[in-house]
Order: sequence, then C-alpha cells, then structure tokens
Amino acid sequence: MFEFTLDAVDGATRAGTLILPHGQVRTPAFMPVGTHGAVRGLHPAEVERAGAQIILGNTYHLHLRPGEEVIRTMGGLHRFSTWPRPMLTDSGGFQVFSLHGLRKISEDGVEFVSHIDGSIRTLTPESSMAIQWALGADIAMAFDHVVPGQASHDLAEEGMERTLRWLERCGRRHAELTDGRSDGRSDGRTDENGRQSVSPSVRQTLWPIIQGGTHEDLRLRSLTGTLERGPWTGIAIGGLSVGESKPVMHRILEDLIPAMPPETPRYLMGVGFPEDLVQGIARGVDLFDCVAATRNGRHGSAWTMTGRVNIRNAANRTAEAPLDPDCDCETCSRFSLGYLRHLFVAQELLGLRLVSIHNVRFLLRVTELARAAIVAGEFERWSREWLRRYHEREIR
Amino acid sequence: MFEFTLDAVDGATRAGTLILPHGQVRTPAFMPVGTHGAVRGLHPAEVERAGAQIILGNTYHLHLRPGEEVIRTMGGLHRFSTWPRPMLTDSGGFQVFSLHGLRKISEDGVEFVSHIDGSIRTLTPESSMAIQWALGADIAMAFDHVVPGQASHDLAEEGMERTLRWLERCGRRHAELTDGRSDGRSDGRTDENGRQSVSPSVRQTLWPIIQGGTHEDLRLRSLTGTLERGPWTGIAIGGLSVGESKPVMHRILEDLIPAMPPETPRYLMGVGFPEDLVQGIARGVDLFDCVAATRNGRHGSAWTMTGRVNIRNAANRTAEAPLDPDCDCETCSRFSLGYLRHLFVAQELLGLRLVSIHNVRFLLRVTELARAAIVAGEFERWSREWLRRYHEREIR
Repeated sequence: MFEFTLDAVDGATRAGTLILPHGQVRTPAFMPVGTHGAVRGLHPAEVERAGAQIILGNTYHLHLRPGEEVIRTMGGLHRFSTWPRPMLTDSGGFQVFSLHGLRKISEDGVEFVSHIDGSIRTLTPESSMAIQWALGADIAMAFDHVVPGQASHDLAEEGMERTLRWLERCGRRHAELTDGRSDGRSDGRTDENGRQSVSPSVRQTLWPIIQGGTHEDLRLRSLTGTLERGPWTGIAIGGLSVGESKPVMHRILEDLIPAMPPETPRYLMGVGFPEDLVQGIARGVDLFDCVAATRNGRHGSAWTMTGRVNIRNAANRTAEAPLDPDCDCETCSRFSLGYLRHLFVAQELLGLRLVSIHNVRFLLRVTELARAAIVAGEFERWSREWLRRYHEREIR
Repeated sequence: MFEFTLDAVDGATRAGTLILPHGQVRTPAFMPVGTHGAVRGLHPAEVERAGAQIILGNTYHLHLRPGEEVIRTMGGLHRFSTWPRPMLTDSGGFQVFSLHGLRKISEDGVEFVSHIDGSIRTLTPESSMAIQWALGADIAMAFDHVVPGQASHDLAEEGMERTLRWLERCGRRHAELTDGRSDGRSDGRTDENGRQSVSPSVRQTLWPIIQGGTHEDLRLRSLTGTLERGPWTGIAIGGLSVGESKPVMHRILEDLIPAMPPETPRYLMGVGFPEDLVQGIARGVDLFDCVAATRNGRHGSAWTMTGRVNIRNAANRTAEAPLDPDCDCETCSRFSLGYLRHLFVAQELLGLRLVSIHNVRFLLRVTELARAAIVAGEFERWSREWLRRYHEREIR
C-alpha cells in the first residue's frame, strides 16, 4: 500500500503509478473536488466515467455538515458517497485560514466561526487527524498554517515554522490512530460496527505540506524540516495559487521541486486551470486538485482547445456543433452548444451539470495526454504545441 | 402511424399499444414533463433508463425561451433535446390561463404578459399549432380555454364552447401544416434544411381536449362536439386536477369515459400523484402527465410504498437503507437515505436529481405494475391491495 513507482521520466517530468488502498492512480493526475462528499453537481458515476482516478473531500465542510461521526457511522466517506476509487481529504487548514470567520490562531490550533450556524469551533492538528481518520480517505493531509500569497517574510516564516511543529503533532496522532491506540473520538468509545478497524495499518497515509509563501529560503527550510520528520509516502506543496502571480508560482516550483526526493509523489494543492496543469507537470508535479472545473461549469464558462466559451453568449443560440468538437466527454458526445445555451438561459439544472462534466473531463484529459507524452518521451514538444494552441484562444 | 391497439381489457381498465413516429408506448403510461426541453433536473438518458416511453414538452415555455424558430433551426425538439422516444407537446392553453399575466381572452385567442421579459404576447389556435409544428412532437394538443375547478356552469360552458370552436380552427391549421400548404411561419419562408418536410403526413397528430369543468352535462356535450369534429387518434380530458376535489374528479371520469370511443387512447391531463394514476387507470385512462414527481423531488419529498418521505428529516441522518427498499430506481439501487439527506441539507444539486429520479421511476412503475395486472386480469385485486398499502402510509 502507498507505493509510488516511476513509469517514465522525461526531463523534469514524470509518469508514475501510486498504489492506494482503494486502487491505483496513474500520474500526473487531477483530482476533482467533492466539497460535500459529492463533486459539485455531479453523480459519482459521471465522475468515474469522466476518468477521475481519485477525488478530494473537504474536511472543513464535512466536519460541519454532516459531521464526521455521521460519516463514520455510515461506514466512512467512500461508502457514504458511493465513490469506489481512491480519495484524499484536505486538513481544513486552507479553509479556516481563507474563509471568513477566522477568530484566533494559537500554537494549539485555530478558532473559527462556522459559516453554517455561527457556532464557535476549533481545529487543531489532533482534531484534523481524528476527523480525517473518521472520514477514512486513502490520504490524509497534515494541518497547516496557510498565509496569503503576498505574505511578508516574517509572516510566511511564522506560518512555515508552525506548520512544521503542527506536522509533528499530526504525525504522532496519526500514528496513534493507525496503531489503534486511539480511535480519534474524544469520548473514547470503541468502534461498534468494526468497519473502520479492518487493516488499520494500511488504510490511510499522512502527507505533509510544504509552506513558506513566495520566499525561496523558507520553502527550502520547510522542505528540509519536513523531510527530517519523515519518511513520507507523498509530499504536498501548499500556499500557492493564493494570490501570487503565475511567474512567482513557477519560480517557487523550479526552486523547490529539484530538492524534493524523486521517488515521492508531489501534490500541488489547489491548482489549477488547464495551463497550470501543463506548467506544473513540466516542473515535476504529479498530482493536482482544483474547484475551478465545476465552479466555472456552474457559471457557464467552459474550457476548450479553441478558446474559453461563455455558454450564455447569444451567438451560441443555434450552434449545432458540440461545445468542444475536440472533446470526448459525455456532454460533447451528445449535446449541441445551442442546447447547452438554452439550458443555462432557462436556468435548467441540467446545464450546470453538463458543462461541469465537460470541464472536469477537459482537465483529466490534459493529464492523460501529458502522461502519454511523457511516456513517449515527447513532453517538451507536446506541451509547447498544447500551450501554443491554448494561448491562441479567444473568448467566444 | 398513430395507431392504437388494445392488448387487454379488464373491466373498465385497458392495456394498449400506441404507435407513434418515434416509437411505441405501452399503456397505461405516465409522461414525465420536460418544461424547458429537459425533464427538470434530469438527463434524457436518466429519464430513458427510468422507463419513460414518452415525455411532454411545454409549448408556452419553449415559445418564450428559446423560441420555436431556434428549435426548428436546430432540427426540432427531439433533436435539440436529444430525446429519442415519443413526445407530446401541450398547447400552451393551460399555462396562459393558469399563470399570472393573463390579460385578455377573446374569440381570436389569448393575450398575456411574458413572465420572462414582460412583453405582451398572443396565443391563438393557429399560432399554437404553428409553434407545436415547429417543435415537432409526435402529438400536438388543441388550444383550449381552461376554467378553474370551481367554475360556474355559465363560465364552464363558455370555456367549453370556445374550446370546440378553437378545435375547428386548430384542426384546419394542423391539416394545412400536415399537407404542406403552410409551414407555420408568418413570413411564408420555406424550410431550408428540409429536415421537417420529411414525411409530413406521418410526423404529427392532433389531439382534442374535452372541457366542461365539473358539470356532467357540459362534459358530455364537449365530448359529443369533439367527436363530431373527428376522427381523432387520441382524446384528452382537460380542466381536471385544477382545484376540484378528488371525488368530483372521479365522478367526472366515471360519467365521461364510458361515453368515449373504446378504440381511442384517453389522456388525463396534468394528473397526477401515485394514487391518482391508480384511480384513473381503474376508470379507463390510458395516459397521464404531471410535474409533481420532479417538483416534489426538488423539494425533498419522495413517494414510497411505505409512506411519503421528507428527505431532510433529522431521523434520516444515519439511515443506511435506501429511500425505498421496494424500489428498483438508480437512486435506491446505489445510495442510502442518509446520504440523500446530507445532500439536501448541504444543498448539493445531486440531491434534487436523485430524488427526482426516484419519484419519476415510482410513477412509471405504478403504470408498469398496473399494466401487468390488467394483462393478467387481476387489476381489481392488485389496485385494491396497492391502494390499501399506499394509504396505510405515514409521513416519515
């Protein structure tokens, strides 16, 4: 379990296979985001048919609603949501630091106001581990202190150092949960249905998160400190795509990734748009997640190889062609752009779904094509051509 | 085309087969309603997999958005919406008489205010025929004057007589469209792409609507007047389920249906709930439509054989069983009631869809079971038992 093998390397880029309790993930890979235990607007079967190998669940949202005890009782997030393939949960760190409602950051953890009912809540490294253990994803993420993209060196250093100290606490608690020394419940009850006690040692792994803002020295110190606390089955790069410019993000990746162990999968959190995936893969990233595919889909904005399409555009009224003639998704295989426009204008729910399916498939296809190019030793040529076509685009 | 054969008769009930240009419909049958060219919240493939043999499109809504000329240009409503099976369009009569915005009723037609943009619009028997011709459903409905369920004898008589006069105009215009003497466009342009000129004589049939409120004498006069203007390939009963009580509706059906020609399919418009289907079938109805399945689904209310389920109910929080253990729908085959509750509480769009799928399948299954009982000569026993179980229900 939790093995990663490199299938091909082409310059900085890599194609790998990540083995997880719920199946394998061919990398580079994109994870659609299932905020509330469902990828927004989509059926798990649609997400699977779009080619998703792994999805992400949001600890913050699921903790607030329905609560991890409900999900534990229902057999864990896989069973609850009927998603049969691998899953990763974030730690809640990003949400508590970026959503309104942050009240107090202390060494112990973070106090925040629930956006659902206004109640005051706390997340700590230990409680994040306990919640993620109850959710039961294949991969749990360490609880980190995220700072804004323009954070000063001092603030970024404070967040980075705290993230390292919290990583130690996460590691200790996760080991206790894994060993069965704790079931993560404050009341000490045992797990009655026993479902989650099966093979505890192979059911979940913990990945650390590199922080340090846009400061190269901090990023490298964060990596060193993280590796000292290892070994790890995967390492995430957090705190990017949070307000800094794209060239800055690329520079951080170029500084950081060559120092990362090549045999460990690298997960760039919260990224990205199609071109971000290509740029990230070019610099050695293996795993991505982002809500943009479904968020843009719900707003009627679609990615295509010939430009971004605003579905509602009046020019699409009688467009008989699919949204993206290049695309093999379920939406483009069946429906005309004109019909999609009608659904959006008439506010039919089906429209949100169909464009979300397309956008998710578009990102998954970018990773599939990139992997094929890496395996063929042609990533450099493929990505140059792909970016050229993609940046030629106009907004339709 | 447009043939109806009786496969079995059991007392007042019948099982038949209706042949239409886009396929056959085994009756009794329920038509899910596709208001805007999509059954609310559902994918056409989901509607098909739920067992729908025919769906209904709303002329009023499609005339306003996207407009029939868009749909004609896109090859008709079947091609536009990718629905491959038979389709029926209503005439717009019910909507203009029941929605806010009715301005003027005259012998010519109805003036109303569009709920979309406040523009003043007119529907006449002729324009309703032209719109439905452009939409291209297998069955078009005559434009009728609908009165409320509590309408006086005088008002009901006025509406009924006008409906007969309008039926003559509908019949004339529909015959012109069918013969190719008119393409239904006011500017007299010919149909450039020729798609809709293929076999014009077999592509659409017109069904009349019986009116007369809750007054038996008017209902019978409406039937007589309608039959005098025939022959018809089907006859609809309109103006029921519009505020009158259920016993009154049943009495009307019992008075009217025995006078209707047995060889012609009978369509009870806008009905109904599960028990209404059973009661209608018992009285000789062949075809139904209603928005309740998807509307209730979107509001989190589900029909089951053991009671109506309010999905959001806190008692469902950790319910591991399906919504309806008796049901074979895609929702009940995969998801727990607890997960459905979570989706509704978290306002995830997937929830609306999953409960709508269940409700649509529930109604379709009622018609399938009723047909099997009729063919087996056991409808009386089956319906008594079904109604007994269904009325034992409690709200969960």
